[in-house]
Amino acid sequence: MAQSVLLTGASGRVGQAILEGLADEREYEWRLLDRDPPTGDRDYPGEFVVADITDEEAVREAMEGIDAVLHLAGDPRKTAPWESVLPNNIDGTQTVYEAAVDAGVDKVAFASSNHAVGAYETDERTPDMYREDDEFQLDGTELPRPGNLYGVSKATGEILGRYYHDEYGLSVVCVRIGNLTKDHPPIDYERGQAMWLSHRDCAHLFDRCIRAEYDYEVVYGISDNDRKYYSIERAREVLGYEPRDNSADHG
Amino acid sequence: MAQSVLLTGASGRVGQAILEGLADEREYEWRLLDRDPPTGDRDYPGEFVVADITDEEAVREAMEGIDAVLHLAGDPRKTAPWESVLPNNIDGTQTVYEAAVDAGVDKVAFASSNHAVGAYETDERTPDMYREDDEFQLDGTELPRPGNLYGVSKATGEILGRYYHDEYGLSVVCVRIGNLTKDHPPIDYERGQAMWLSHRDCAHLFDRCIRAEYDYEVVYGISDNDRKYYSIERAREVLGYEPRDNSADHG
Repeated sequence: MAQSVLLTGASGRVGQAILEGLADEREYEWRLLDRDPPTGDRDYPGEFVVADITDEEAVREAMEGIDAVLHLAGDPRKTAPWESVLPNNIDGTQTVYEAAVDAGVDKVAFASSNHAVGAYETDERTPDMYREDDEFQLDGTELPRPGNLYGVSKATGEILGRYYHDEYGLSVVCVRIGNLTKDHPPIDYERGQAMWLSHRDCAHLFDRCIRAEYDYEVVYGISDNDRKYYSIERAREVLGYEPRDNSADHG
Repeated sequence: MAQSVLLTGASGRVGQAILEGLADEREYEWRLLDRDPPTGDRDYPGEFVVADITDEEAVREAMEGIDAVLHLAGDPRKTAPWESVLPNNIDGTQTVYEAAVDAGVDKVAFASSNHAVGAYETDERTPDMYREDDEFQLDGTELPRPGNLYGVSKATGEILGRYYHDEYGLSVVCVRIGNLTKDHPPIDYERGQAMWLSHRDCAHLFDRCIRAEYDYEVVYGISDNDRKYYSIERAREVLGYEPRDNSADHG
């Protein structure tokens, strides 16, 4: 049976990478939501809802009949001010979880971010932690240490997910996305090498978020880079994530 | 030299317990802030500012010349709806941290709550975890698991504190307060016995938050009860907390 998938923030960078990779997947019926209407030069694989993520009524309507949600909508700027992340990222995410529970949705994959743990990159640890022979690694069990207010908002979205899972049984996976770029990061950009998430690995990872069974999880979303200070073991284990790219392969 | 201490939520239950215990402390110059004006039948040991914690300008003004902040203001109801905790507890707390940093404040003690970790009290663990011979214990290093949206807001206040510490060097201690009651809890109320924080231990604990030196800490605020599933070791070690009460002493 086809799965109905709601993708919020469909026009954003992550949303576009997911759609590129999964638009031909015939098992999914897509509903796409974004604040901005689609531009004319592109086909979308499903119904497109133009709505702000803070518009509770529109979000509730978009949630009807949905099995799984990929929640990406929000202010994506790492420099986003509190005045923006409070409504768009924190309040918007609470609206999504609440509507998902009320609509009987099974799963929500929440686009968290490496910025939720950015402050682990201290002066003492860097640049060593960006290098292959360094042993420092985060695996998703550590407490959040946001490096900016955007990261605070993402860590809050994770806690909201924990609550909606514990209280209502919603399956929630929080994906701390690294640096999503179409091309390989420059070989001399050490942090970028360690953080890279390729477009096809991104699409595959969120595909696994739709298909896998889980309770509440926090995983890292990066490719299988030689250099990495985020573990992808939990994503492999729980979601069946099998990345195919590695920033070290060419640059 | 006298320390200037700003106490937000001064008229609330925790604020009153603190003032009862510390009002005669001559080393402190108090500035009290609450949304509600003081009632006529009580003396306050300092200047009283009537302002809402979401009133950024008023909070900034109240922060001038302050050394340490005890931030208690917010909606204290465990059943508080999102529409209240978002502005009052989350946005209000960000306002306090931001104003504290800008005013050059040294320390902020944030009144967090047992509700930030309430969902650890699962059906499988309770009531065993409320009993003396059970080994389950939380010590502040665990990830938040809020049992309600009030708890989500308190966990978010902790993450905000982590950020303002990491980014600006502000000393922050988050106190996950148990059940503060004047009298001993009923002897047959097992959870209450384990959770109890006496008025004098509460005042002493926040006194230590003003005096001690720390970076970023999450501690539990309960008395030295025979039964406890929250560790007070970190509070003892870092803050010099020496509780004098125990819920088991009489009931």
